[in-house]
Amino acid sequence: MKKCAVSAALLTAVLFAGAAWAAEEPIKPISPPKDVNQAKAELGKKLFFDPRLSKSGFISCNSCHNLSMGGSDNLKTSIGHNWQKGPINAPTVLNSSLNFVQFWDGRAENLKAQAGGPIANPGEMAFTHELAEGVVKSIPGYVAEFKQVYSDDTVNIDRMTDAIAEFEKTLVTPNSRFDKWLLGDAKALTEQELAGYQLFKKSGCVSCHYGTSVGGGTFHKMGMVAEYNTKNPSEGRKGVTGKEEDRRMFKVPNLRNIELTYPYFHDGGAATLSQAVETMGRIQLGKKFTDEENAKIVAFLKSLTGEQPSFTLPMLPPSSDKTPPPKPFEN
Amino acid sequence: MKKCAVSAALLTAVLFAGAAWAAEEPIKPISPPKDVNQAKAELGKKLFFDPRLSKSGFISCNSCHNLSMGGSDNLKTSIGHNWQKGPINAPTVLNSSLNFVQFWDGRAENLKAQAGGPIANPGEMAFTHELAEGVVKSIPGYVAEFKQVYSDDTVNIDRMTDAIAEFEKTLVTPNSRFDKWLLGDAKALTEQELAGYQLFKKSGCVSCHYGTSVGGGTFHKMGMVAEYNTKNPSEGRKGVTGKEEDRRMFKVPNLRNIELTYPYFHDGGAATLSQAVETMGRIQLGKKFTDEENAKIVAFLKSLTGEQPSFTLPMLPPSSDKTPPPKPFEN
Repeated sequence: MKKCAVSAALLTAVLFAGAAWAAEEPIKPISPPKDVNQAKAELGKKLFFDPRLSKSGFISCNSCHNLSMGGSDNLKTSIGHNWQKGPINAPTVLNSSLNFVQFWDGRAENLKAQAGGPIANPGEMAFTHELAEGVVKSIPGYVAEFKQVYSDDTVNIDRMTDAIAEFEKTLVTPNSRFDKWLLGDAKALTEQELAGYQLFKKSGCVSCHYGTSVGGGTFHKMGMVAEYNTKNPSEGRKGVTGKEEDRRMFKVPNLRNIELTYPYFHDGGAATLSQAVETMGRIQLGKKFTDEENAKIVAFLKSLTGEQPSFTLPMLPPSSDKTPPPKPFEN
Repeated sequence: MKKCAVSAALLTAVLFAGAAWAAEEPIKPISPPKDVNQAKAELGKKLFFDPRLSKSGFISCNSCHNLSMGGSDNLKTSIGHNWQKGPINAPTVLNSSLNFVQFWDGRAENLKAQAGGPIANPGEMAFTHELAEGVVKSIPGYVAEFKQVYSDDTVNIDRMTDAIAEFEKTLVTPNSRFDKWLLGDAKALTEQELAGYQLFKKSGCVSCHYGTSVGGGTFHKMGMVAEYNTKNPSEGRKGVTGKEEDRRMFKVPNLRNIELTYPYFHDGGAATLSQAVETMGRIQLGKKFTDEENAKIVAFLKSLTGEQPSFTLPMLPPSSDKTPPPKPFEN
């Protein structure tokens, strides 16, 4: 017992030192999710994986926010109903609870508001909220689970998106090597990674990419000091506010797990982290990083890969004879 | 200890009785998978879930053999590259190791031979084996895993399909209520389910749907006593043998988990189990089941739903800077 007590005291000292260390840095470690309603999150997980929320019966939230692949689809822009080419790169759903608003243009104030969007978007899941409600209501296994979670068996889009958002709250990725370093484990980073982090701060990257999610807290113009060349017509924040000065203003992407969420930018224009760092230096900071500097920053960025959400693949309750069949080949 | 010994003796007696009981029935209980190479199956699971084996980077084995939905896509016919309409209903991958051959027309002799088919089918994943090999070879996490499983780091389609087949061997569904009944638990089935089973045998369904997988052991003509009306042009076994007498000869589908794998038949022409039973009675057996008889058989069929494979969603190793990007919008 005495040995245990000593170890505990040591651990406390280390953690305290770590916490103090982290407090001085502009990037903060990720904490495990708090106050999760487990039953609601389980229901939300099923809905997240259920392609019956789409017109085709083929596209689920997980199709474009694939939790086997960093919560993204690793495509330049996504594939929607009838193989439509999406207008913008699918942001990762990992750590999205830490973003100040949702979507690249911030048009949803929270995860619940976001979750309803793709279901009813004609270019994505191409359904309507009413039809999605009708499908879920017709599935006895779902109705029973809604009753268990919400005390009565009302199924509606409000509850469906509430449950999906609860599941998404669990999709945080703590314990990256960088976070271990922040918490006081000096050996968690290599010299190169640490040098990359110092350069990331010194060069000004951190002025937009800061906080727990290393981004996700502000809107900024894509192309602050030099124009960004792209064929992607997205107007960014202007589409929400209507203001000309908001053209090409996008939510700064969070950089957690950035190693997994290629290709980069709203248009998926950068295939590799090295290209992304080069472009960001040039158009946002007016800097040309040397190859060595670029490699250091890339090494640091890869240390932001955290523990991926680990869970059992959900089993979806089967449709009933009354469930409206999907219509994959109608436009 | 004495109490335990008595219980063990009792259990043995029950199991022995059960085994004897099962031995007299034309349907046999499913055993858990044997001799699985776990490391190989883990690698195969990753490949099964990896959309990078398709040209688009969007379609994986799991897209059409969705393990959240009974190993099927619950569509009449599947959706392939560029939203092409597939020619035939996707058979479940569950218990496919128990089928005597693979595909509706039996053109693959085993799971390994089957697994390579959809990858290179222009209407499905639309890739080539060479390109799929190239993608996997470019991913360091995969190369390391191939080395671990196969002793050297050679990545080729032969090993890829070998690993996928090993994973598929694990996708069996023991412990259905029907199997519990077979093994001696007389209370595992309701009276209606048991009556349905007796009718299933008496009516002749069991002459094609027998054995461990309740089907999957022979080819039979779709429409033995009355023609099956369908717009689906599939020729069945004739496409393999070239023989006119093999037209519309299909592998008898296995009925395990049939509750989950709607819609039914090679053309997905029956939306519900009730419709499927009606049609089978009429065109295969020349029988018209009453509503009550139909309900009994459906009740029995639903008792064939077994324990679904339960596993952690795999995390896929990220692409490297050298990985060829997917080409979702090329035909």
